[in-house]
This record gives sequence, C-alpha cells and structure tokens, in this order.
Amino acid sequence: MAAAATTFSIIPSPTTSRLTLRRRSIRCLSSPAPTPPATVLSQDDLKKLSAVKAVEYVKSGMVLGLGTGSTAAFVVSEIGDLLSSGKLNDIISVPTSKRTFEQAKSLGIPLSTLDEHPRLDLAIDGADEVDPDLNLVKGRGGALLREKMVEAASDKFIVVVDETKLVTGLGGSGLAMPVEVVQFCWQYNLTRLQELFKEEGCEAKLRFDPNGKPYVTDNSNYIVDLYFKTPIVDANAAGKEISALEGVVEHGLFLDMAAAVIIAGKEGLSIKTK
Amino acid sequence: MAAAATTFSIIPSPTTSRLTLRRRSIRCLSSPAPTPPATVLSQDDLKKLSAVKAVEYVKSGMVLGLGTGSTAAFVVSEIGDLLSSGKLNDIISVPTSKRTFEQAKSLGIPLSTLDEHPRLDLAIDGADEVDPDLNLVKGRGGALLREKMVEAASDKFIVVVDETKLVTGLGGSGLAMPVEVVQFCWQYNLTRLQELFKEEGCEAKLRFDPNGKPYVTDNSNYIVDLYFKTPIVDANAAGKEISALEGVVEHGLFLDMAAAVIIAGKEGLSIKTK
Repeated sequence: MAAAATTFSIIPSPTTSRLTLRRRSIRCLSSPAPTPPATVLSQDDLKKLSAVKAVEYVKSGMVLGLGTGSTAAFVVSEIGDLLSSGKLNDIISVPTSKRTFEQAKSLGIPLSTLDEHPRLDLAIDGADEVDPDLNLVKGRGGALLREKMVEAASDKFIVVVDETKLVTGLGGSGLAMPVEVVQFCWQYNLTRLQELFKEEGCEAKLRFDPNGKPYVTDNSNYIVDLYFKTPIVDANAAGKEISALEGVVEHGLFLDMAAAVIIAGKEGLSIKTK
Repeated sequence: MAAAATTFSIIPSPTTSRLTLRRRSIRCLSSPAPTPPATVLSQDDLKKLSAVKAVEYVKSGMVLGLGTGSTAAFVVSEIGDLLSSGKLNDIISVPTSKRTFEQAKSLGIPLSTLDEHPRLDLAIDGADEVDPDLNLVKGRGGALLREKMVEAASDKFIVVVDETKLVTGLGGSGLAMPVEVVQFCWQYNLTRLQELFKEEGCEAKLRFDPNGKPYVTDNSNYIVDLYFKTPIVDANAAGKEISALEGVVEHGLFLDMAAAVIIAGKEGLSIKTK
C-alpha cells in the first residue's frame, strides 16, 4: 500500500563526542555505499545518535508527542537539553506514558494532553519492528494505546530505531506483538487472537510483570503478546481483524503512520521516508 | 443489509395472573390486527411478559448469556424460578455484568465465564433501541462491552423490549447511544465522537454517576453518551468509524446480532425475527 521508502545515509565520524556527532559529523550522503566507521558504537550510542537526529525536526513553538521506551527517552533528554540551553523554546509536549510524563516533568519540558492539544505538530518515538513500507510493531514497552492516540494525532510521526528493528514483514522478529485487552475474559480473547493467526504459527501469551502478576497497562488493561513463527501475511487485514474482536482495546500494529524512520546502524544513520 | 424482519403477534388475555399469561394466554396469531386487551398492563408487566416469552427458548443443558438491565433482570429471575422448580436443569450461565452475576448467584443459577465457555447456545438481553432491521442500541445500563462480548459469542441472541424501544433509525429516540472510552484523554475522544456525527446534530456528554463523579464501567473506563437530533444515517459505517478511534473500547451499536426481538406492547407481545 505504501509508497516505496527513500533512504538517505548519514555517517558518524570515527572519533567524536555525542555533541560533535550532532553538530559536526552527521552529514547526508547521496552515495548508496556508506563507509564503515573506525570505532564501534554501542547500542546506546546508536540510540542517542538517532535520537539527536530526530530532534533536528523539532522547531520552537511546536506541540510535540513524546514517545516511550529507551530510544524515546534519549529524545526527551535531548529536547530537555535544548530547552534549557535556550536553543529551543515555546515547546508543549504530550507524553505517551506515565513514565515519559515523569521524565519530561523532571527536565522542565512543558506538559499538556490531547484534551488541550488535539492536534500535534510532530511526534517522535521508537518502534519494535519496522517493515520495508515503514509499517511498525510497537508496544513492547506496554504504552501502545497512548502512543497510538498521540501519534495518530500528529501531523508528522518520526520513528527512531537501531538497525536490529528492521524486518522484512511485521511479526518477523519472532518477538512480541502486543495486543491490549480488557481484563474481563482475557483468556477468551487470548484464544481468539491465537486462532486468528494460525497460518503464522502464532503463540499468544499473557504478559506478566516482574512480580509474576499479570502486567496491567496505564489504562488498567492486560497485554496479550503474540509471537509469530512467520511474518504476518497481510498486516492491514490483521489490524482490522484484531480490532473487530470485542474486548480488544488496541493492537501494536502501527500501519501507515510513520512519515520517516531514522535508523542507527554500525555503519551510521540512515533515514527512510515515504 | 438485514433480511426483512417477520412479525408474529401474541396477545395476553385481559384478566390473567403472570402465570396464566405465560402458560395459557400467549398465543400466536397470523392476523395482522391484534385485539386490544381490556386491562392496562404496566411497564413492568410488559417487561415480565416478554421476559417469560424469551425464556421459552431456554432448554435444559444450554450455556446461556444473561443480559443486564431491568428487562434482563426479569429473564434471570424467571430462569431462577424454572431451575428451582426443576422445569429446567443443567444450565450454565455467563453474566454480562457484576450486577447480573450477583443476581444469578443469589438465585442459584450456575455461573461461568467466556474463558471457560467460549461458545454459548443462547443469550437474552434487553435493548435501548431496536430498528426495523433488528439492529440495536444498547448500553444505557453501562454494560455494553461485556454484553457485546457475550452476545457475539452466542449462537442465538434474543432481545426483549417493550414497544417504546422501537425506532425507525438508530439514535432516533433522542436518548443516549453510549461509547466506552479509556479515561486517558476522554475529552479528546468526546470531541472526536461529536465531530463524527455533525450531520446528525450529535451532542456528546460524559456520563456521571449519582455522586457527580464520572461513571466508571466494570472495565475501569468512562462512557461518552451521544445524543442525536436525527437518526444515524448509516449505522454500519458509523460503527466502523467509532471503532477506528484510538481509545474507544466499544460502542453501543449492536448491528446484525439479534436473531429475534420480543416486543411487549399494550396490545400484547409480538416477535420479530430475521
């Protein structure tokens, strides 16, 4: 369905601090074959790098959606830095979880809600999987509903990931695709969800918290995690079928929502747009 | 979309007790013009009359869905009577609310859940509106989500109403069409719901409990009640559009679900089937 994605590559200089990475060394190349860097970047370095790049899209005066998760936390941190240094101002933010709310608050980023700001200029968030058409799996952090509400309300939604999140088809990582369900008769919905994806060899599991109790979302619901042996055959149909189940509140397929995906890899940053 | 409904009329004898109404006087007429009864039946009489008729569909050994609301309470009561008198046995019931659970429990009706019984033989429930195609508005009692889950899982769903619930188009009563939404940014969703039905002059209001606090459903959500100046133009499209809003958990349009509607009126009972 989506237009073919366009890719740009951005390569970090081999010997840089985070600041110089941002200010000096990120450059766009038209060449399709990026040169490998001399230093090895950690997973966290990669996340920071892509977060800093994403924040370049933020302009003073914007209403921003703030994502949830480890990469999104770097985004929030960077916005906090730019606000406190005066490089950004007049920002209003709508967080997608209680966690992100707390982080933004601690950094002095002005907070609001969709009730007060039903249209956002830009949202930035991580993702768990990205397919070639920029469709996503999101929500392993458990904030999928609020993320989808905020990101669907944004004029532009930019995704930041490291290259391990790229898949040829959604569900293809073999990791969880979360579905938020009401607590009432969750087992019934778990069974129905598993049945829905027989073809993909789906196994559905209730998510538990570290204390061994069912994980409860910010909205008092449970999460059923779907694990696929093979990628979802038709993600659009799947999204509709999941949503049609009574008692399903939201699912982690974010289809046709991302305007751009910033991908941090060992060979540098690349940006895919639609 | 639905097949034209067929109507049968059943007329109560003018001077009867509830029991004789059930056992003797309910008779099907092929004549389209029923004779008015000599006595005036109260609203509660009418509800009991239709409840008793609906319970005639219940057979021993069935797994039953039990509805919620004043008419459904008469159904539950009647099933309790038949079980305790030994006229019915081997019934398992799945209640659609905490209220109905308590009532069924107090009457000794065996209880279960969709988790244990994902397929039901029959569900009986009231409705707030019934259109000519047997599409319904339900949920003014606040139990719409569990009602929809249970009734969608039933092989047959029978609706019991009094004739004041008949409308030419859904939303046409001018009373509430409820939508269950997550508490997070409910105002945002209220505004979006109202916008969706501009054409029908819709006014959306958050439901409050008698203590002046937002009404909280059994699933910890809020209810936004939609009031229409004119009936919903296309109920199927409306259902899909409402469901597509992130943060909407369920809506009160029960489309293409009822197999039969038992209608109690001043002139007797009538049954509409699909």
